[in-house]
Amino acid sequence: MPSGEDRLIQRFFRPLARHPGALRLQDDAAVVVPPIGSEIVIKTDAIIEGVHFFAEDPADAIARKALRVNLSDLAAKGAEPLGFVLTLALPGGVEDQWIQSFADGLDADSKVYGCPLLGGDTDRTPGLLSVSITALGHVPKGTMVLRSGARPDEVIVVTGTIGDAALGLWFRREPERAEKMPLSASERAHLIGRYLLPEPRNALASALREFASAAMDISDGLAGDLAKLAAASGVSAKVEAVRLPLSKGAQRIIAAEPRLIETICTGGDDYEIIATVPKSAVSKLKDAAKRVGITLTEIGVTGTGEGTDILSSKGQPLRFERPSYSHF
Amino acid sequence: MPSGEDRLIQRFFRPLARHPGALRLQDDAAVVVPPIGSEIVIKTDAIIEGVHFFAEDPADAIARKALRVNLSDLAAKGAEPLGFVLTLALPGGVEDQWIQSFADGLDADSKVYGCPLLGGDTDRTPGLLSVSITALGHVPKGTMVLRSGARPDEVIVVTGTIGDAALGLWFRREPERAEKMPLSASERAHLIGRYLLPEPRNALASALREFASAAMDISDGLAGDLAKLAAASGVSAKVEAVRLPLSKGAQRIIAAEPRLIETICTGGDDYEIIATVPKSAVSKLKDAAKRVGITLTEIGVTGTGEGTDILSSKGQPLRFERPSYSHF
Repeated sequence: MPSGEDRLIQRFFRPLARHPGALRLQDDAAVVVPPIGSEIVIKTDAIIEGVHFFAEDPADAIARKALRVNLSDLAAKGAEPLGFVLTLALPGGVEDQWIQSFADGLDADSKVYGCPLLGGDTDRTPGLLSVSITALGHVPKGTMVLRSGARPDEVIVVTGTIGDAALGLWFRREPERAEKMPLSASERAHLIGRYLLPEPRNALASALREFASAAMDISDGLAGDLAKLAAASGVSAKVEAVRLPLSKGAQRIIAAEPRLIETICTGGDDYEIIATVPKSAVSKLKDAAKRVGITLTEIGVTGTGEGTDILSSKGQPLRFERPSYSHF
Repeated sequence: MPSGEDRLIQRFFRPLARHPGALRLQDDAAVVVPPIGSEIVIKTDAIIEGVHFFAEDPADAIARKALRVNLSDLAAKGAEPLGFVLTLALPGGVEDQWIQSFADGLDADSKVYGCPLLGGDTDRTPGLLSVSITALGHVPKGTMVLRSGARPDEVIVVTGTIGDAALGLWFRREPERAEKMPLSASERAHLIGRYLLPEPRNALASALREFASAAMDISDGLAGDLAKLAAASGVSAKVEAVRLPLSKGAQRIIAAEPRLIETICTGGDDYEIIATVPKSAVSKLKDAAKRVGITLTEIGVTGTGEGTDILSSKGQPLRFERPSYSHF
């Protein structure tokens, strides 16, 4: 007689386990064969109800966010996905319909990003809903893109737009104030959507391996994450605030309330990639990004010494009250 | 300025990250190079406060249990450990001393089992303490020991002793009744200790690869887990209850209260390995087990057809109210 967990896995998750190494989720472990000459890149990240998402968020979006935050790290490291394992802690009251929607979301993204479900563990918890994912990727040996590879006099680039998710979260947390912003319905929806569902830049992985000297994904805000990259590389970094790529909604918000530049620079959940590139390789990386439909913007340069500054249009470093976002 | 999570990682977990691929826990992901010609075995398992351990259990034991339940699966699959990643959800009130003890326990086992910390994610949770670990192992290509490899007319063997952890849990849950058992203090401590801290049989991994046709670790009770193995392999299984290896404490308990054979056969948390072995290989596997100090007991045989029976000394199948343990 199968246990509750067995039944749940069979009904909701076995259909996702199409990778032969998942062994139909009927063995103790999964098995994957890494491509010859590759090394394995491993990332684990968990999201917890009330910390990283709202309990009322759609189940499929929660699943996709859990996978995407891990995929984003693989992308930043230049790694191609191999697959993932899932740990799901379900409070007692969660219903089958919710689990089905969760599994559907996971399945959809697993296909889009070519990252198959390999295995997992499902438990009922008396606590909060949480989803922990470990993603495996691969790179040709020795080519993982590190945080520590930046050199002075390189160009700092960033994908997509910055600050949208942090502003989206602001709409969720302080709707009274946020709703006063002069935004169209679609601009507002864009910001909220960017918090709900990151857009990991896995299509850029191989180009980062080829052209970037260092990279990381921005999960705790551009200012703090760039500071980590610069410190790991032993370089300084200067970014011009005016060059930061902002969505239309973010631009309108800054125009209406300039001090929200801090939210844009230090809020979390961007899941864009910040990278450093030797000057000779910038146009090649930009071309590669264009080919896969990802916007890439030059926002600053590295230098000798240390310290990371985001400069105002007058060349003054911006000072933030809280330089980096932390869920902790 | 480092965030709370950065400080915690730096203080408590960086000292564990001696594997070069962990990148001192200062990058987005870890990297490991699998041995040439190998494939990667992946297992993830989480333990949650109040479900898989008691909140008052020592922090170092909680950490070690979280790692060991995963190591146990690697062992059963014949895999050698490559390393692990950790997701830790810490309630707000958890103090530094607890975290230090947790990290110390993890470090100790990581060394004993040769399974280095590669990376992780630490979050404060408004919910319960939980620890999710993903362990990576490797096997020579095509040699992972499956659940589905058993053939009829093979010998069923099991490592160590069965039922100790389930009885240990009984002591924790129903101390008034359990304390009436005629056990010495050391027998009682043994049972309780076996619940607190499994003893994964990783030393047997290579011999299982060589000699076992199928194997799995017993986490949900011998009866249910053997039934899963037999079903996956398309064989029947018959076990003689009298041959089950029991510790002195378990033997005394059965003598005093025979119906507790059900707890022994269907309780969870054994983390012993059950395996099937062709008759010609049994003595070789036993010799190999002896060399690494692991007891291996023949408890039954496989046959054609289906169904798993644990037979009484009169040859009658035992009937259990709840055939398999589930934390779910």
